[in-house]
Amino acid sequence: MDLQALLDEIASEVVPILGQGKVADYIPALASVNPTRFGMALATTEGQIYGTADWQAPFSIQSVSKVFTLSLVLSQDGEALWFRVGKEPSGNPFNSLVQLEYEKGLPRNPFINAGALVVTDRLISLTGDAEGALLDFLRKEAGEGAVHVDESVAASEAEKGHRNAALAHFLASHNRIENSVDVVLQSYFRQCSISMSCEGLAKAGLFLARHGLRADGRRLFTRSEAKRINAVMLTCGTYDAAGDFAYRVGLPGKSGVGGGILAILPERGVLCVWGPALDSHGNSVAGVEALDRFTTKTGWSVF
Amino acid sequence: MDLQALLDEIASEVVPILGQGKVADYIPALASVNPTRFGMALATTEGQIYGTADWQAPFSIQSVSKVFTLSLVLSQDGEALWFRVGKEPSGNPFNSLVQLEYEKGLPRNPFINAGALVVTDRLISLTGDAEGALLDFLRKEAGEGAVHVDESVAASEAEKGHRNAALAHFLASHNRIENSVDVVLQSYFRQCSISMSCEGLAKAGLFLARHGLRADGRRLFTRSEAKRINAVMLTCGTYDAAGDFAYRVGLPGKSGVGGGILAILPERGVLCVWGPALDSHGNSVAGVEALDRFTTKTGWSVF
Amino acid sequence: MDLQALLDEIASEVVPILGQGKVADYIPALASVNPTRFGMALATTEGQIYGTADWQAPFSIQSVSKVFTLSLVLSQDGEALWFRVGKEPSGNPFNSLVQLEYEKGLPRNPFINAGALVVTDRLISLTGDAEGALLDFLRKEAGEGAVHVDESVAASEAEKGHRNAALAHFLASHNRIENSVDVVLQSYFRQCSISMSCEGLAKAGLFLARHGLRADGRRLFTRSEAKRINAVMLTCGTYDAAGDFAYRVGLPGKSGVGGGILAILPERGVLCVWGPALDSHGNSVAGVEALDRFTTKTGWSVF
Amino acid sequence: MDLQALLDEIASEVVPILGQGKVADYIPALASVNPTRFGMALATTEGQIYGTADWQAPFSIQSVSKVFTLSLVLSQDGEALWFRVGKEPSGNPFNSLVQLEYEKGLPRNPFINAGALVVTDRLISLTGDAEGALLDFLRKEAGEGAVHVDESVAASEAEKGHRNAALAHFLASHNRIENSVDVVLQSYFRQCSISMSCEGLAKAGLFLARHGLRADGRRLFTRSEAKRINAVMLTCGTYDAAGDFAYRVGLPGKSGVGGGILAILPERGVLCVWGPALDSHGNSVAGVEALDRFTTKTGWSVF
Repeated sequence: MDLQALLDEIASEVVPILGQGKVADYIPALASVNPTRFGMALATTEGQIYGTADWQAPFSIQSVSKVFTLSLVLSQDGEALWFRVGKEPSGNPFNSLVQLEYEKGLPRNPFINAGALVVTDRLISLTGDAEGALLDFLRKEAGEGAVHVDESVAASEAEKGHRNAALAHFLASHNRIENSVDVVLQSYFRQCSISMSCEGLAKAGLFLARHGLRADGRRLFTRSEAKRINAVMLTCGTYDAAGDFAYRVGLPGKSGVGGGILAILPERGVLCVWGPALDSHGNSVAGVEALDRFTTKTGWSVF
Repeated sequence: MDLQALLDEIASEVVPILGQGKVADYIPALASVNPTRFGMALATTEGQIYGTADWQAPFSIQSVSKVFTLSLVLSQDGEALWFRVGKEPSGNPFNSLVQLEYEKGLPRNPFINAGALVVTDRLISLTGDAEGALLDFLRKEAGEGAVHVDESVAASEAEKGHRNAALAHFLASHNRIENSVDVVLQSYFRQCSISMSCEGLAKAGLFLARHGLRADGRRLFTRSEAKRINAVMLTCGTYDAAGDFAYRVGLPGKSGVGGGILAILPERGVLCVWGPALDSHGNSVAGVEALDRFTTKTGWSVF
Repeated sequence: MDLQALLDEIASEVVPILGQGKVADYIPALASVNPTRFGMALATTEGQIYGTADWQAPFSIQSVSKVFTLSLVLSQDGEALWFRVGKEPSGNPFNSLVQLEYEKGLPRNPFINAGALVVTDRLISLTGDAEGALLDFLRKEAGEGAVHVDESVAASEAEKGHRNAALAHFLASHNRIENSVDVVLQSYFRQCSISMSCEGLAKAGLFLARHGLRADGRRLFTRSEAKRINAVMLTCGTYDAAGDFAYRVGLPGKSGVGGGILAILPERGVLCVWGPALDSHGNSVAGVEALDRFTTKTGWSVF
Repeated sequence: MDLQALLDEIASEVVPILGQGKVADYIPALASVNPTRFGMALATTEGQIYGTADWQAPFSIQSVSKVFTLSLVLSQDGEALWFRVGKEPSGNPFNSLVQLEYEKGLPRNPFINAGALVVTDRLISLTGDAEGALLDFLRKEAGEGAVHVDESVAASEAEKGHRNAALAHFLASHNRIENSVDVVLQSYFRQCSISMSCEGLAKAGLFLARHGLRADGRRLFTRSEAKRINAVMLTCGTYDAAGDFAYRVGLPGKSGVGGGILAILPERGVLCVWGPALDSHGNSVAGVEALDRFTTKTGWSVF
């Protein structure tokens, strides 16, 4: 299969829908992104890298970062992590606060914001420097220059972060976090403000396609643990559209409101797409379409 | 790999936990089942069948039937079905009625009871005889003698069916069903009352592992549609423990309160386990454990 | 104070808003009522009766009937009734099913439909003929010819009653009712289908203004119990607008989707207003306005 | 009626239940209060003051303060306030966050914490010094020495205030507050930390029994507005037990977790009771019982 040609073909096929949807507008740095941009990269476990369109342009990875913080914490805490956060899909967004209340502050999964705050809190406790640990990991997997924190995004996130602050205080009221609310929030906002390209993210995610093996050949965690993160991505990775994403794309994936989606092809490689215009669930319209076309053309869904 | 030896090994390994959990007790026919029974069967796409322990004993398939009614309706309605029922995980059980109310009677997925009632309603409209169509399908896939309706279960289901009646009337109040409430309920209760063995169910599910090909070589639906049913099973098939099931087992699966679980190994085959004692989510304790051990030992999870 | 002149004045003042709002349209018999009709009656504890506009025209009393069934049951069951139904306001309508689920089928108060079904069920158990008991009571208070059951409304209610059927089956699933679901529903639909005029209803409610004394001088229940029914009317009598009704009108009141509202002036008398066009909460727009004007002009709110 | 004898009689009658319930224990200053203390005061509109037991002992007024901040804001904002906060009962506590989410951050009434934060925010905007305005008002009504802020309570409230901080940030995320979250929280915690006695609170509430007239004869707001605050107290003043309080006591009342309850006898006077041990809804066990006995003995409920 000519993978480069395939990516190019998909890039041309999605042109008509570029700009469909709505760019995240809660902070200026995201609102000003051109909604018709599109990039797609494929990094294979055999070491090849393919890319099309804006695949080397940096964008705000936002919640895609949650895959990496979860992996880092799970590699140290192991199964004990699941006493701090669940691993069930969260139902519709309306229910998020309800569920948190009903379950006495135990976040339903590590990819909703409340769960990511708990994971961040834990990463702070484990490393003393959550941001440093995350950036170091990403640079080791994707290359030194592949990653930077966008300070203007970080400042805006903090300023507009009342909803996350509400969640963090709510968690604190249930004794669900170990560090101070302000420290956790600050760290959380900064990890959401990381900029990477499709190329960088695809490389950074390869340890999941290699079932735990990092770029330098060392093992982050067991084969079984890698599979389990893939399972959590599939059931919880795309907000309240996880069922639809599994149905259409059939791959473990994690999206962010910056328009990026990271998708794992177990044992084969990692896809990363970027398209800033989002559907009503917060997932990239062009990104989901491109991934859908990729798995339909290749038959490489996990099902 | 010696699959027969593997099944036997797993059967002996789960012996210590047999009886852990609680047998469904809302109707006498289920309450009286011996909680320590256990069976497991594997039907391969290459035509082999393996089984261990009580793998040929009939049990009440209950909600496992929902996979087959969904498949039959999807084969005729295609994507149009999703205007009648969603395909997202349902969150915790407490939320089921909330979500149904919030989403104006659109059931969240075809495997919660409200969704299955809508699918049953549609199967009645399409076939005129939903029960006949379902039994005919199951017998063609699993063998003439593999299937029967347990009349005592059916009568008990109808008698104890106030919650399903509440759901059906609620759906009717939102104009979500086409046939009379009583007709839909009657048909639904009877399909839940089907008895089959692990062997029979494993064979009956092979069309999903073969991506749409039935036992006689004809196609029920496209490869893509088969994959999509697998996706719905993975995200929604085990009540509000779908995330945990994906995490531990990593296979598309559908459970029933009779203690059965059907799990699909795409392109390889179908597993069916049975253990009547259930965990708090309504899934067989021994069944989930046996499947977990199977995928851990073989590495055959989809992730 | 010239009460007749006051009622006439209010009737002329509300003319500009007659027709504002929306007539209940879920059954034809209600949908066809002229939205600009208006009536108001005042029956005093001293035996006077005043009325204006359409005060002698019969209308469908609908949920106003719940005050009378509650009173009849409370007069026999006493405080024990509150083990079957709560007496707290129900919050917004969206939450009704949630609350019922959360509280394991215990209806929040006797004036939401679920609670009224429980009260009806109890009245059936106590009397053997709930409808007969209710009609007999109303006729003894308001006069023989003041009450009849509108058979076309009753038939329509039964036909369109899926939501109430859902509630009744849900209650049955929690063992909250004693009689068969069908018998309870039938009785409930018929009590909602009673037709009376403002004059008749105002007279029928006088036992509450007289703190328990019926028209014939006998006592239905104690002074204290009468006050307590007034309290339940004030906190729960006007759907999810009880707070606003207390704020504007300041009287115990019970409304129905036929456009009637019964309001108690403790020790002074009973007001009944009728205006078929409803606000978004299901209360008569003109009715609430007329009552607001009445208590503002007289200062006779309970506060 | 010998009101002093009546209060003494009630005080002796409630002795057997003193200590039933549970003292608020989320901060040390409340947890250390002797649960068997009890006080009761009655201030009449004719200028008499009666008291029994610990009626002159200061206690933490907590949420009773919400009546006064609401009154101060309503006296300036008038009806416009209700665009910022609703006036409907809030249903059970579980639903509070649901409702806040469902209603896009509009608090259901001014007496739930979210609503009180909005009122506090508004008082800050109107006065520049919410605490000063509140203390000044209370001192002018109750006497110079009747009021002080307990600094140890204020410090503890701030330290343990994660849940209120969560609410405030949630409100901010919906643009429901005008001042900074920290400023609003600080002011809110301090008003909850005011200490007063039954005597002081009863005097301070007299303007509501006098329908708007303050101690110095000036009018805080109209008769109609005073009645409306009484209505809000009756429907929303005792957490999720407002229906039960109206049923048993039949007076507008506002309770606090310090164990105080302020109850209005329109045109007659104001009752204040104090008993630190709370029921499961957060209302004083002995306090509610004492008020129940008072209205039963006097017949002075509003119904």
